[in-house]
Amino acid sequence: MSSVEPRRRADAERNIAAIIRVASDLFGRGQSPSMAEVAGAAGVRRATLYGHFPSREELIDAVITHAITHTDETLTALALDRDPADVALERLVRTSWPILDRFRRLRTAALAELGSERLRRHHDRTLHHVDQLIRRGQDDGLFRTDLPLDWLVTTFYAVLHAAADEADAGRISPSAAPDLLTRTVLSLLTLRRDDLPEDT
Amino acid sequence: MSSVEPRRRADAERNIAAIIRVASDLFGRGQSPSMAEVAGAAGVRRATLYGHFPSREELIDAVITHAITHTDETLTALALDRDPADVALERLVRTSWPILDRFRRLRTAALAELGSERLRRHHDRTLHHVDQLIRRGQDDGLFRTDLPLDWLVTTFYAVLHAAADEADAGRISPSAAPDLLTRTVLSLLTLRRDDLPEDT
Repeated sequence: MSSVEPRRRADAERNIAAIIRVASDLFGRGQSPSMAEVAGAAGVRRATLYGHFPSREELIDAVITHAITHTDETLTALALDRDPADVALERLVRTSWPILDRFRRLRTAALAELGSERLRRHHDRTLHHVDQLIRRGQDDGLFRTDLPLDWLVTTFYAVLHAAADEADAGRISPSAAPDLLTRTVLSLLTLRRDDLPEDT
Repeated sequence: MSSVEPRRRADAERNIAAIIRVASDLFGRGQSPSMAEVAGAAGVRRATLYGHFPSREELIDAVITHAITHTDETLTALALDRDPADVALERLVRTSWPILDRFRRLRTAALAELGSERLRRHHDRTLHHVDQLIRRGQDDGLFRTDLPLDWLVTTFYAVLHAAADEADAGRISPSAAPDLLTRTVLSLLTLRRDDLPEDT
């Protein structure tokens, strides 16, 4: 067997990486590039682009997959299980915010192209960290158990992404968001003395 | 002057009402009708439809405006200022839910067509009720003041719409949503003894 096949595969991988990098950057800056523009910026022919990503929808799907993989790796590296759940939650929020802030325009493009439900399913891998953390906080008596776990994960997701949308619209300052989010999410999750019977 | 002009105007109003009713119903059932399908279902010619709504975007915009007007009227009729803010908040949530549930698929279509920011601005008229209510609860010492009012309104909006998305995806039951939302929103907004200095 000649070395042609491995070389072709390496070319394809390089092209795919360049396309995703360029598309990530263009959508991330709030642009809405055509497929021809993406091909041009990535330095590949349109036929090559369409060979890898037959539609704009599949391209955005791949860009989101790439961003989620990055986020998942970052959250895994936090080793959240070393800290008490409430401390870990604050670290999770403060680490997630710059990622959300960086990808907020990509999110807008993905919402339009993929819809909110498909975008939410992409987040299953990152929300897995949130799910585990809330579950542990519940087991340790730090977090509330009067609302379903899935719903608590959903409100976490909704509130963090709402902050990204607000930052994108200029209604909150990105630098104020980590404090705002930490307070909000802890209010949602932590047990309240008010909720306990009077004699405890 | 003949009676032709008033009659034409009456025809136009009747056509617009029929178009919005039909489009509301089709989008509300999760369909994605073409302009030709909307015209057919409303019993008007395509030229008539395009005369009133030159694009699908303008049609969805009008459908959303119609839904928001209905919601605003419903919330105004609640006369929320007669009750203490926390009681009024629960009434607001329980009245809003069936409306959100009814329009949740229209919301999905509007998100794709108009984007999240434009959809949010449409909600200014309904969020005005929330803003006023939270402000009153803060003045009366019932609601927290450690987070900006605008952010509290945003989290209210985010959490209610997250529940509608969850119901649409089949992850929560629409009948469970009012209790879930009431507890969640009150946790977010009410002052907590934990947040007060120890000696109070």
